[in-house]
Amino acid sequence: MKPIELIDRCLQKNRLTLDEAESKQLLKHYHLPVVNESIVTDADDAVSQGEAMGFPLVMKGLGSTLTHKTELGLVKINLSSSTEIRQAFADIQAAAGNAWEACVLQPMISGKREFVAGLTRDPIFGPVIMFGLGGIFAEALGDVAFRIAPITPYQAQQMIEELTSRKLLGNFRGEAEANKKQLIETLMGLSQIALDHPAIKEVDINPLIISEDGSLTAVDALIVLDDTAPALSNATLNAQADQMRTEHIIKAIHTMANPRSIAVIGVARTQTRAFAGMYRCIRNFGFPGRLYPIHPKTDNIEGAKAYPSLTALPEKVDLVVISVPGPHVPAALRDCVASGNKNIHIFSSGFKESGEKEGIRLQDEIEKIAIEGQLNIIGPNCMGIHVPANRLLTWSAAPEKSGPLAIVSQSGGNAQDFVNIAANEFGLYLSKVFSYGNALTLDSTDFLTYLAQDDLTKIIAVYIEGVKNGRKFLDTISRINPQKPVIVLKGGMTESGARTVASHTGALAGAEKIWQACFKQSGVTHVSSLEEMAETAVALHHLPPTNGRGVAILGTGGGIGVAAADSCARVGLELPALPADILEKLREYIPPAGNMIRNPIDAHIVLVLLKLLGPTLELLSAQPYVNMFILSLHLDWLYGIERGKHTERLAHYLVNNAHKYTNGKPLVVVWRQYQSSPALKESRKRLVEILKEGGIPVYNGLDRAVSALAKVVEYYEFQRHLPNNG
Amino acid sequence: MKPIELIDRCLQKNRLTLDEAESKQLLKHYHLPVVNESIVTDADDAVSQGEAMGFPLVMKGLGSTLTHKTELGLVKINLSSSTEIRQAFADIQAAAGNAWEACVLQPMISGKREFVAGLTRDPIFGPVIMFGLGGIFAEALGDVAFRIAPITPYQAQQMIEELTSRKLLGNFRGEAEANKKQLIETLMGLSQIALDHPAIKEVDINPLIISEDGSLTAVDALIVLDDTAPALSNATLNAQADQMRTEHIIKAIHTMANPRSIAVIGVARTQTRAFAGMYRCIRNFGFPGRLYPIHPKTDNIEGAKAYPSLTALPEKVDLVVISVPGPHVPAALRDCVASGNKNIHIFSSGFKESGEKEGIRLQDEIEKIAIEGQLNIIGPNCMGIHVPANRLLTWSAAPEKSGPLAIVSQSGGNAQDFVNIAANEFGLYLSKVFSYGNALTLDSTDFLTYLAQDDLTKIIAVYIEGVKNGRKFLDTISRINPQKPVIVLKGGMTESGARTVASHTGALAGAEKIWQACFKQSGVTHVSSLEEMAETAVALHHLPPTNGRGVAILGTGGGIGVAAADSCARVGLELPALPADILEKLREYIPPAGNMIRNPIDAHIVLVLLKLLGPTLELLSAQPYVNMFILSLHLDWLYGIERGKHTERLAHYLVNNAHKYTNGKPLVVVWRQYQSSPALKESRKRLVEILKEGGIPVYNGLDRAVSALAKVVEYYEFQRHLPNNG
Repeated sequence: MKPIELIDRCLQKNRLTLDEAESKQLLKHYHLPVVNESIVTDADDAVSQGEAMGFPLVMKGLGSTLTHKTELGLVKINLSSSTEIRQAFADIQAAAGNAWEACVLQPMISGKREFVAGLTRDPIFGPVIMFGLGGIFAEALGDVAFRIAPITPYQAQQMIEELTSRKLLGNFRGEAEANKKQLIETLMGLSQIALDHPAIKEVDINPLIISEDGSLTAVDALIVLDDTAPALSNATLNAQADQMRTEHIIKAIHTMANPRSIAVIGVARTQTRAFAGMYRCIRNFGFPGRLYPIHPKTDNIEGAKAYPSLTALPEKVDLVVISVPGPHVPAALRDCVASGNKNIHIFSSGFKESGEKEGIRLQDEIEKIAIEGQLNIIGPNCMGIHVPANRLLTWSAAPEKSGPLAIVSQSGGNAQDFVNIAANEFGLYLSKVFSYGNALTLDSTDFLTYLAQDDLTKIIAVYIEGVKNGRKFLDTISRINPQKPVIVLKGGMTESGARTVASHTGALAGAEKIWQACFKQSGVTHVSSLEEMAETAVALHHLPPTNGRGVAILGTGGGIGVAAADSCARVGLELPALPADILEKLREYIPPAGNMIRNPIDAHIVLVLLKLLGPTLELLSAQPYVNMFILSLHLDWLYGIERGKHTERLAHYLVNNAHKYTNGKPLVVVWRQYQSSPALKESRKRLVEILKEGGIPVYNGLDRAVSALAKVVEYYEFQRHLPNNG
Repeated sequence: MKPIELIDRCLQKNRLTLDEAESKQLLKHYHLPVVNESIVTDADDAVSQGEAMGFPLVMKGLGSTLTHKTELGLVKINLSSSTEIRQAFADIQAAAGNAWEACVLQPMISGKREFVAGLTRDPIFGPVIMFGLGGIFAEALGDVAFRIAPITPYQAQQMIEELTSRKLLGNFRGEAEANKKQLIETLMGLSQIALDHPAIKEVDINPLIISEDGSLTAVDALIVLDDTAPALSNATLNAQADQMRTEHIIKAIHTMANPRSIAVIGVARTQTRAFAGMYRCIRNFGFPGRLYPIHPKTDNIEGAKAYPSLTALPEKVDLVVISVPGPHVPAALRDCVASGNKNIHIFSSGFKESGEKEGIRLQDEIEKIAIEGQLNIIGPNCMGIHVPANRLLTWSAAPEKSGPLAIVSQSGGNAQDFVNIAANEFGLYLSKVFSYGNALTLDSTDFLTYLAQDDLTKIIAVYIEGVKNGRKFLDTISRINPQKPVIVLKGGMTESGARTVASHTGALAGAEKIWQACFKQSGVTHVSSLEEMAETAVALHHLPPTNGRGVAILGTGGGIGVAAADSCARVGLELPALPADILEKLREYIPPAGNMIRNPIDAHIVLVLLKLLGPTLELLSAQPYVNMFILSLHLDWLYGIERGKHTERLAHYLVNNAHKYTNGKPLVVVWRQYQSSPALKESRKRLVEILKEGGIPVYNGLDRAVSALAKVVEYYEFQRHLPNNG
């Protein structure tokens, strides 16, 4: 019987679970290693089938009304002869009485190593594949890995490697290594089932036993159905609809990000608060296009002609900004529909994010207007758009310079802060900023899709609290990441965090494990703060690809060298010990007193006599185990040499010369500075400026640099494993 | 047979392991739940003993030459009748042949839950107690907790709670909760064995089975001996010697930290480098006592009379500072011995820390001189002493102000940096600084013992890479911590870090798990950077004791609220949801537009209208679930109100009024500031200054504050569990 027939038969009988035999039959169709079994209805047949299978055997009674088989004496294990088969058959028949229909005979699978595998459906991400440690400890230890389906064989392999108990899958106490190929096939099979059969809600394979010879057997299995889902998937149809929507969305967002004309609904007659409001912010930042204030009662806002409504405007605008109190937003949107304006940013708040009844009702109301009017809406409850190249900004105090970095942020505050951190701390400027709040019609995936094809954008930062369609989000970031690194900060990863999210933008936050799976399988860079986002972005932007995990650290101060080693170990970077021949070469020009030549190389002299620095970098970069460099500068000390002049000289030397010596291997600079002297701080500022302008990532403290480098390493390691890279 | 007799008998026979029966006999003496067993030599006896024990039973053959019992058929399990006992007895006798001596009979213990417990001896910390998950997964999962012996019942309980698999010890799949009392007694028994018998090197109880009824049974046990250790401990003698040494050491360190006279051996005739050298550093910081330069070839150093040697000095000095190249240190020390000068700081390096043969030899040489001459030595390879109140400093650019914080640091660089971080970032000044490097005679515990009784010191920070005597270190910090919080940064916690330590100060770094145990059981605050050390110190110094884990956050910006919730969850703090009645009271004066009243309370208005801030704090602090406050200030926004004047007003308000409203509950302030305007930065600096001077801990970024508060909470939670606090 085909899988779909098994499912249909079950649903027709109003059963929402397949029985053990049906479940196994379905799994077998997908090449899962279900235990071999035979249905037997007489003792002679049982003996001949049993002898063919090989001893020892297990026999169970079958019957549609039979449950609690073990307790009823309907399960006989460890049968090791024909006589025992006959005896078991008779005993089971007797015990089952009239309910008996047949017996099932199967080899008795033994193995110390028990795992579980399965499939479940997440409300945000859809089908999710699970693999983990089984046995009685399974629940208590929770050693389980997830991936969002469909998965690739590489992703299946990653799931296996992620388990703490993965050692059990190797050579274990004299038992053979688990058959990895079979294991990957099992997980791939579950993934395929998830795609083929939306009606299958859950699959549970427990236990999945690893035998002494390493072979896998799904000894028991359960399949649960969902009678509200279609039995077969209609993926093709959806894909076509998605494609059409995508083209439309890209065009709309492009228009809003490059507007020739903007109308603002909701402009105060005079500015009374610290925040200038949308209209004045756009004007003050120097928007060069046509800017229309809309006001019901005045025809003049600070010298500009005001209009009573969109309908009264001389043209349809590229972007409407709505900044009236929440309860007036429906009317403003109706004005948009009436005037044929489709592209709208709603700044106003007081909707779903309030968590209050009236806010939720209001959001439902505007959603209805938006859908019926086919409006493209950024927001509500968001800061909107910032495109420096077009002198477009809907807030204040953002840099005017344009750069390679884009951010898509569900939080307006985070969008603003991130722009300032990236620019002011790291000299990294923005191409486009989208703050989209409650995501009424345009969601993070829409902005990402737009940015994927935006030539000015090379790296994309994303702050999300939730997404509407997890699988689409995963697909989008997976597709973009190889070309343009995607860095994601997810608010509400923890349970308590998630509660705050729900109250903040009304988004549904997914479970932490599933989100982690999403980041791991897409290969995007997952960070945990805005600062780390900027720190990683600047490294991904400036540094060449990494090709290994070995770090060489040059710097000063013993204690900090120890800390560096600890930092590297924590994120999985290596500080390779330098072999004797290299130490000898370094000793030729580095004296022993006060200089510790290990890795970290704690040698003040190399930072003081710059003619020694280049050759040192050159020597190390020629070694295959050195894959990147950290220069750790203790500015309190360095300043002592010619009162900061040397610091500056060193910075220029690095910008102008380091690349000649590093053999294409990344180099970053770290500073520490603890003394309070203003002259020292000024000198530090100068160092940072020179390096930033010279394109050398520079960090405050070793931990930050090590963490950013680890992210870069992980990015390129993932890229190398992608199918098209072999 | 008494334990000591069992051990002696074994050692006399040149055996280094007790057999199973001996091991169990010894453990039984310490009330460990070893399986009940009887030695039987005839079948009738076996039957009567067996019937008394109750079925099912296990029988094994005994014989001094019998090994591989299972393979030889000498183990019979699941005996359930007298007949089966007789049969087993006969079979075993037959199988063992002439080697048979007796049979051992024991109840067959069954239980799904297998654990392991044991005792081992760490090279640094001495006896260590272990408890963890057993069974076939034990190795692969490594779910194991350690504590350094002797342990208290509370520490034993902590070990149990630390396991990931602790759920197995509760009600588990219908089996009863494990007998916790028995479990604690088992661990306490192991601890007592460790103390009583230095000759016992290792104890391994595997498996320790938890039966269905929750009872514990040590089914198998192994005891390994060390024939180089004394059979019985001589703890009393050691304690007396320690006490005498302690009094002597306190006196010596006191003299060095409060010197009336200092001699410096090794003074450059003229200053040629950026670093002024020991003599000029001491002089330049304004040391008010008698300061003697020692120089072999000149009698005048910049106007001060120089002496050719210590012997030529008019007095014995309180402190000799040696700052000559390593190879000249032995001669300088001999000069100390000859002149009767006992208190010495050796700044010079090039000893054990170099990892080179000559350096190690040199350290051995000076150690011999020091021990024979009964010298008290700080160093070598260290920065020495800083006591602001005595205007004593052996480096430069340290604050002149004195404060409640002391640091003991194995790294000179870290000592200097920490002083600057604490003073410049947090306004926390130092009472005493000891940088002690290679710890030739004075080790971290000596300085800690001195600081414990130093009235000026209220909080102690420690940077260590290794210690000579782990148990002594543990005892010292455990004793001091309740009176003066001890904060420890351990370099070389990770494996790679440990390698660098070995090369840095030649200290032996202990395994990470054992160090973690040391911090957990002493209750000291373990941090992972100098910055975190200062952040925690300022919180422990200024804040009142905490009494719970609930945090109320007041601040601005939705996205950051989500991040705060994530931060709290990560360190185990709680963000309690506010109940309806509290929300209602807040809503009376906080309008809904733009203000999100949850926890975090994202309400700009409360920070703007200060008359609302006090009552808000008062309302929240009256709730038992609010145990501390974080005020999160986004200075980019706040600055907009009267160009920074309001920021300053807020800071003064907090300093002068916050304590009136917080009901004795801790409050800290967090700032964020990302825009680049210099005026804004100036305003931020002013805010931080006012708060620092007002004794309100202030942090850059929420994560830092949350982490510091978590450390404070853990400190007071531990204090409440100490025996003298009930």
